[in-house]
Amino acid sequence: MAKDMTLLWGSGSPPCWRVQIALEEKNLQGYNQKLLSFEKGEHKSKEVMDINPRGQLPAFKHKTYVLNESCAACIYLESQFKSQGNQLIPDCPAEQALMYQRTFESLTFTQKMADVIYYTWKVPEAERHDSAVKRNRETLSAELKLWEGYLQASGSFLAGKNFSLADVIVYPSIAYVFRFGLCEERYPKLAAYYNSLKSRPSIKTTWPRTWLETQGSDMLKDL
Amino acid sequence: MAKDMTLLWGSGSPPCWRVQIALEEKNLQGYNQKLLSFEKGEHKSKEVMDINPRGQLPAFKHKTYVLNESCAACIYLESQFKSQGNQLIPDCPAEQALMYQRTFESLTFTQKMADVIYYTWKVPEAERHDSAVKRNRETLSAELKLWEGYLQASGSFLAGKNFSLADVIVYPSIAYVFRFGLCEERYPKLAAYYNSLKSRPSIKTTWPRTWLETQGSDMLKDL
Repeated sequence: MAKDMTLLWGSGSPPCWRVQIALEEKNLQGYNQKLLSFEKGEHKSKEVMDINPRGQLPAFKHKTYVLNESCAACIYLESQFKSQGNQLIPDCPAEQALMYQRTFESLTFTQKMADVIYYTWKVPEAERHDSAVKRNRETLSAELKLWEGYLQASGSFLAGKNFSLADVIVYPSIAYVFRFGLCEERYPKLAAYYNSLKSRPSIKTTWPRTWLETQGSDMLKDL
Repeated sequence: MAKDMTLLWGSGSPPCWRVQIALEEKNLQGYNQKLLSFEKGEHKSKEVMDINPRGQLPAFKHKTYVLNESCAACIYLESQFKSQGNQLIPDCPAEQALMYQRTFESLTFTQKMADVIYYTWKVPEAERHDSAVKRNRETLSAELKLWEGYLQASGSFLAGKNFSLADVIVYPSIAYVFRFGLCEERYPKLAAYYNSLKSRPSIKTTWPRTWLETQGSDMLKDL
């Protein structure tokens, strides 16, 4: 029982979901957790700010060690609980290299996704341009095609024959683009990856409850 | 001799510099390397694209394993050459947690730095706004104050009593903001950190040659 861990999280947030998946993969259940609402601004509450002064979720702590950056938390958990649950960092140098490469490359993917999905939230009305929206969408589409190609080459998982930290970190972003209406027919490898991992216990157990209860958006349907 | 490694790099680029520092720290000298020019567009050359299809530098390879993401390359090198050169990932869980947290947090810092320094390069003229420039600068200033506070708390290094991967990854970005004119008096802890590590062998040896030969910018002097 991971009673010495605390996770404050928001439903549907890829960074929060990553940490939840990693905890499941490492058999670290029973941690203290609290679901907070972005809509109600609870990510700016004192409870969050005490752990994460950036006022973002996740806010995560193991003992007194703070790991709010979701990728940092995932790598740390694997390092500290290496022999527990599923091994997430491959020993094979070739797979390990690919795993780290895809993990860090995914931050570019996430950034490009955010530039499209959060555009009106991030850019004040007076600074918005149709040309920027169009360019951001084209950039995201090109990025998704790269990942489509990666999966074409790698098969079931992103870095080798086993589920790894790269999958823990990238899967929530891929699920997110489908939640926002990405066309499964146009990105068949991404869709196959998305659908095949839905039933993996660590992912199924942590699937965002809000996604089960509400309809997604169709923002990316023409991408 | 690291003859099974190849690094294509550009002078003054923080991501390239990180990999160079990591290689020095791990005593991996003698690798194949080639200095390319961003100005001449050599980062889009076939030689680079063959290793890094994103057309970015660094392009880095160990044997046949490609690690173009600079942070991925640094973590991989530490993992594969753990007992060689300086240990960059602390064993102590508290220091390790802080090291990973700062390492990934630095990607936010780098992004905010890029939003200011590359604004006119990234944003087409018709989409530029003084309000965006002002906001980006304020955001970067707030970010730098966070790091000033981190150094106030941690002392000589970013994550504990020894130089670590967090320093390898963050130092080039901190040097970059000073290269762009950040005021040493206004950010005394960052300045002390910047100056004290200049003489560290891994950093001194890899100091961007272009920086020794040309004047920096004063873009950030009022930040």
